[in-house]
Amino acid sequence: MSIPASERTLTRRDEANAEAARRMCEAEPVLVDLRPAGEVVPGMTPTTILTSGAPLAWEEYEGGQRRALIAGAVYEGLAADEEDAVRRLDAGEIQVSTCHEHGCIGSVAGIYTPSMPVFVVENQRHGNTGFCNLYEGESRRRLNYGVYDEGVADGLRFLEHTVAPVLAAAVRRAGGVPLKPLMARAVRMGDELHSRNTAATTLLIKELVPQFVDLAGDGEFDSEALRRTVAFLSASDYSFLRLSMAAAKATADAAHGVEHSSVMTAMTINCRDFSIRISGLPDLWLRGPHPIVEAKLFEPYTADDIEWIGGESCITETVGLGGFAQAAAFALQAYQGGSPQEMARVNEAMYDITVAEHTDYLVPYFGYRGTPVGIDAFKVLETGILPVIDGGLAGKNGVGQVGAGILKAPSECFAAARDAYVARYGTD
Amino acid sequence: MSIPASERTLTRRDEANAEAARRMCEAEPVLVDLRPAGEVVPGMTPTTILTSGAPLAWEEYEGGQRRALIAGAVYEGLAADEEDAVRRLDAGEIQVSTCHEHGCIGSVAGIYTPSMPVFVVENQRHGNTGFCNLYEGESRRRLNYGVYDEGVADGLRFLEHTVAPVLAAAVRRAGGVPLKPLMARAVRMGDELHSRNTAATTLLIKELVPQFVDLAGDGEFDSEALRRTVAFLSASDYSFLRLSMAAAKATADAAHGVEHSSVMTAMTINCRDFSIRISGLPDLWLRGPHPIVEAKLFEPYTADDIEWIGGESCITETVGLGGFAQAAAFALQAYQGGSPQEMARVNEAMYDITVAEHTDYLVPYFGYRGTPVGIDAFKVLETGILPVIDGGLAGKNGVGQVGAGILKAPSECFAAARDAYVARYGTD
Repeated sequence: MSIPASERTLTRRDEANAEAARRMCEAEPVLVDLRPAGEVVPGMTPTTILTSGAPLAWEEYEGGQRRALIAGAVYEGLAADEEDAVRRLDAGEIQVSTCHEHGCIGSVAGIYTPSMPVFVVENQRHGNTGFCNLYEGESRRRLNYGVYDEGVADGLRFLEHTVAPVLAAAVRRAGGVPLKPLMARAVRMGDELHSRNTAATTLLIKELVPQFVDLAGDGEFDSEALRRTVAFLSASDYSFLRLSMAAAKATADAAHGVEHSSVMTAMTINCRDFSIRISGLPDLWLRGPHPIVEAKLFEPYTADDIEWIGGESCITETVGLGGFAQAAAFALQAYQGGSPQEMARVNEAMYDITVAEHTDYLVPYFGYRGTPVGIDAFKVLETGILPVIDGGLAGKNGVGQVGAGILKAPSECFAAARDAYVARYGTD
Repeated sequence: MSIPASERTLTRRDEANAEAARRMCEAEPVLVDLRPAGEVVPGMTPTTILTSGAPLAWEEYEGGQRRALIAGAVYEGLAADEEDAVRRLDAGEIQVSTCHEHGCIGSVAGIYTPSMPVFVVENQRHGNTGFCNLYEGESRRRLNYGVYDEGVADGLRFLEHTVAPVLAAAVRRAGGVPLKPLMARAVRMGDELHSRNTAATTLLIKELVPQFVDLAGDGEFDSEALRRTVAFLSASDYSFLRLSMAAAKATADAAHGVEHSSVMTAMTINCRDFSIRISGLPDLWLRGPHPIVEAKLFEPYTADDIEWIGGESCITETVGLGGFAQAAAFALQAYQGGSPQEMARVNEAMYDITVAEHTDYLVPYFGYRGTPVGIDAFKVLETGILPVIDGGLAGKNGVGQVGAGILKAPSECFAAARDAYVARYGTD
């Protein structure tokens, strides 16, 4: 029989895990700017391209993720065409690196090139910064799904030349936008901030209305640019997701590197594996196979159409959002399947594998209980309960998103984490 | 044993009730303008003041509702001071009438004077129009709570001279704002559109951002007026409630006057009674005592501090919102008490006293089931289940709101409705 935590002496691991979770709760992510990645992302050189997932050698990227990297090189003007891009990538003239190790978070393939604008989100409590580039819009054809043509390039240039400058001016004029209060409010309005960002997108726009009005009144931007920017933000309920991801990254990174902590600080997908990071094992990626999927596929797709081409938006689950807040977002049923009762049950189970309850992200359906936060690798193994992720699913051959559903992080990562932890810290 | 509805022949009452509920579901309320009440409200003369509740003679108004009527006369400039107002009201030089009979809905005391701007909400499906004046803002001192001083008057003039013109220009420029899609969306975002309007307020602002930007760009209004209007709308999560009320009125009125229908088309409170209207009894107000209250009172108030000074926002419950959609709005616990389980249970019970499920207002927690709509007076009496209302509570002596909670419509109204129905139609 295990002794209840309250009746036994706290181990160094318990204390370290409490500290990691405390940092996740206390982080204060604030959107302060939008800037080209090449200007603000640490370690980003003019020939660097970032992509989702734990590190792989260039040669190991395959399928849609490889196509996306090649397309990124062409879009950035680092290569004349796809063939030239492959040659330069093979030769090491263009370097591939991973989002997570540069403070960034990748959506699906997660391609960042130096000219792409990124949200700059400062964690004003702990001093670190997270970044995320911008949503490409509603089209099924997107660079992040490994698709590239003139239309995709035009969309990216529109973000760079219109949306980012207008939004950056509004954000600076506002003196920054504190994201945690906005996100906490969105959770009370039915978002879980991974697969549902409807309220947060609307709240962000509302927050910036005075600035848009001022920018229009001052003539700093022509009203066409303002109108198009507002229309772009309004067009998709997912506009906020990139900010949720950057905020979650700035939050999770603050909890990374706590000695003795077995709390997970990242989950990430590339074309070959699913990997996690553990706070007390700061230099390791613990790898396992791709997630288990309970998907609701869009017509006419089947499970055979799913392709893993990367994805890091599960950083939201890492900090107590997404699948860990799904009982706040019953409206998601329509998108990813399941019943409200099942969503509540799955959400509730996550308390068994976490070390704290969030102090700010409160779920009305749970009587304003804080979301489960701080996923402990040991608890995952002891209970056999796998972390859940509200995920989107990419299709083969650049068809875009083919479905959505609940993904489960594979137990192999957690077993690898336990072994590495024991090797480093013993069995305290 | 009663025969299930599906196995017995539909009576004329069943058919009429289905028709009334269908009209409630099919109504398409659209915000088309804001105008002074004197210009658009039918039957509003320069010396008319409207107030909440079923009709009373001027002499019968007492307490805060009487004070509010007197204050309305002074504010409008129909009397030099309170004493002069009483004299002119006594003499019939100023006429008191009821909101409901002029297409309007009153919040608390529900004072309308001719100069006050009103939202003009057209039901574009059935051709009728509902009106509601504007929220006075967050101050505890408001005309609608029977309080009047220079600050209250300044607030009302700010609505008239700044907020209403800017908002009217934005609404006209938008070509009107369809409210049903916005309200349906808000229900999926945690509003029940009576005591919680957080999402709807935000969605309305988002809807009008392009127009605000254009108005600023064109210089049609100085940016100060635009900024103050946006700030006013943003400052309160209740800004939308007046639109929800006008939309509900335009919806309920479309279902009024269906021969043989026992569906309720209005509930209303004045200082003396709680009254209802029935679709098939178009000229009657069926009266009963004030509602039963399960209140969560704000500190330091007690039940003794509650005063009935009027209130008609329960028009929202009449059309399947408010208490009839509370399982969409678990966040309300914090405001009005109760648990999510209790809220779901109470909401679910309303299906037993209604004749339809709403086709557009869908509750995610109920697996997207439509809200219960079309309250049947006979079903209320047969089941003993009273309609619930998510209500605010006014305090004595002009202290403003003292609490919130669940109100229950009194059974006496429904008994009176049954008697009147049988007298008119027999027992078909």
